[in-house]
Amino acid sequence: MKRGTMPTMKDVAREAGVALGTVSKVFNDIPVGESYRQRVLDAAQSLGYQVNSYARGLKAGRTGTAALILPNAYDPYFAALADNVCQALARRGYRMLLTVTGSDPDAEQQCIRMVEQNKVDGVIGLTYNPALEISPDVPFVSIDRYFGPAVPCVASDNFGGGQLAVEKLTELGCKRLAFFRIGTDVPGEPDKRLGGFQTTCQQRGIEHTTLVLNDRDGYEPFRTFLREHIQDGRPEYDGIFCNTDRLAFYVLAMLEDLGLRVPEDVQVVGFDGVRQFGNDVYYCSTIVQPVAQIAETSVDILLREDRSDLPSLICLPVAYTPGGTTRDGEHGQ
Amino acid sequence: MKRGTMPTMKDVAREAGVALGTVSKVFNDIPVGESYRQRVLDAAQSLGYQVNSYARGLKAGRTGTAALILPNAYDPYFAALADNVCQALARRGYRMLLTVTGSDPDAEQQCIRMVEQNKVDGVIGLTYNPALEISPDVPFVSIDRYFGPAVPCVASDNFGGGQLAVEKLTELGCKRLAFFRIGTDVPGEPDKRLGGFQTTCQQRGIEHTTLVLNDRDGYEPFRTFLREHIQDGRPEYDGIFCNTDRLAFYVLAMLEDLGLRVPEDVQVVGFDGVRQFGNDVYYCSTIVQPVAQIAETSVDILLREDRSDLPSLICLPVAYTPGGTTRDGEHGQ
Repeated sequence: MKRGTMPTMKDVAREAGVALGTVSKVFNDIPVGESYRQRVLDAAQSLGYQVNSYARGLKAGRTGTAALILPNAYDPYFAALADNVCQALARRGYRMLLTVTGSDPDAEQQCIRMVEQNKVDGVIGLTYNPALEISPDVPFVSIDRYFGPAVPCVASDNFGGGQLAVEKLTELGCKRLAFFRIGTDVPGEPDKRLGGFQTTCQQRGIEHTTLVLNDRDGYEPFRTFLREHIQDGRPEYDGIFCNTDRLAFYVLAMLEDLGLRVPEDVQVVGFDGVRQFGNDVYYCSTIVQPVAQIAETSVDILLREDRSDLPSLICLPVAYTPGGTTRDGEHGQ
Repeated sequence: MKRGTMPTMKDVAREAGVALGTVSKVFNDIPVGESYRQRVLDAAQSLGYQVNSYARGLKAGRTGTAALILPNAYDPYFAALADNVCQALARRGYRMLLTVTGSDPDAEQQCIRMVEQNKVDGVIGLTYNPALEISPDVPFVSIDRYFGPAVPCVASDNFGGGQLAVEKLTELGCKRLAFFRIGTDVPGEPDKRLGGFQTTCQQRGIEHTTLVLNDRDGYEPFRTFLREHIQDGRPEYDGIFCNTDRLAFYVLAMLEDLGLRVPEDVQVVGFDGVRQFGNDVYYCSTIVQPVAQIAETSVDILLREDRSDLPSLICLPVAYTPGGTTRDGEHGQ
């Protein structure tokens, strides 16, 4: 290590004889073997590495640029995030580097490396890369995925959204509810939509079931489920909560194929608040994520001068909006 | 001017005693008063300003970053462009700075200035800012708007798309065609959809009409037109070509309100090839823009080493795709 240079995580890793990822985990409070943990802490101390070095704020030599990592930019929810984050950064005089990674781990890791190379000041990431290493030196705000107490995460109140969907569907007359979910295996805040659904159904004694699938499974199991749960031409589940509007879109097509009427026979609520053509009518009745507020909050936290007390998780309020797939208005709504 | 420095457009403007915009116009072959033009050319000559200086290619000190200017990122066509340009740049080791400007002229001009400040290597812009000044020093590729022979423009074959829409609608049995358009006043390549429609209708002796509106007019005149052109419950125009899928989306809702059946009573063709949720079914039968190819070509031209013979306009082939709003299959399609 050169004299007069601040020690980096790499120096700590070399000194401790462990991988850089191990150092990152220790500083992010992610469990590693105790002997590894001790070696990292010893090395950090002997080098004078400042564990809370992320508290020193954004680097003095600012680039005026922040990066946004998204799996893609064509999904309407991601497109809305890109648009809003870009605007929120611009309001603060910052430019936005957009990285669409197709969830490629290398591309995501490389984007984070740009901060260390002083090419960007910080990163906002919506990523389900399980191996992503985020050094505490790197100003990083995660959207939707909780990495641990040292990486601020901004998300919707997904649990509350699950509760709200159950409340609305029962208010609107549904007696038996189903939760449909498709997504990644990597844990994320959106998983809590399921928890909110289950908890509320159990608390209120509402009959319910859940069908929780992985992207690999595809959509067909939902069709099979729906077909197998029709009795005398009526659906056994008269309220369906889908974990995204995209899934609701597929489920609505399946219900139509099966000759079931929406919202007369089945009511459907999605999640996200995606609109047709990005700014027109909602695809379905839905729990709306506050995308502008998510963007604004993420940027605010990313650019905060004092990084000593960043919130580890912020959940922003969601709202229910009717969109033609529920019987709003018939029950005094 | 400092010794040894290449003269810039600003130096030419100062020497000629004219605005920078005037210099830009002269070098971009945009008409200005002849006396101004002569003063600019004289100043350029006396300073040794190299009019074809854009031919010296991208600056040696590369940033590895290019900027994309879009009015917004939530419109699905723009979102698809952002996604594809980002990927095309990444394949060449380039990062993408996304600037969503809400068509704000200052933000767009500032983005172009970043090239002069060596913050980005070049700019790809989809902009309808009438006053935008693009110095020939700046590697710039325009999407959809032709600025003049010195600024390469990449677009779909919009004229061919207009022709194709007429051909398809008549093949599918339509007898009287209407062209609906809403958009900006600033001339752009998409205007040629109208030209292709008119030309083909006239060549083939097809009865037709056009309703060409500005964004300010809103969508209601289309509704009025449709209502006023129903005879005995049948539409007088049985084929409607809309200049965007977004417009087709509105027109389809109006037709439904008026009790007209699509595609039985009226067939509708849009333009763009926008899909639901960015990658699912088309909203309507449509002329599909080759968005991946537009992105790839724009990036290719932007990063070309030899800038001495850049094409001033590239029109990429479009394709017709049925999307449920035309009677494909009934006529041997």
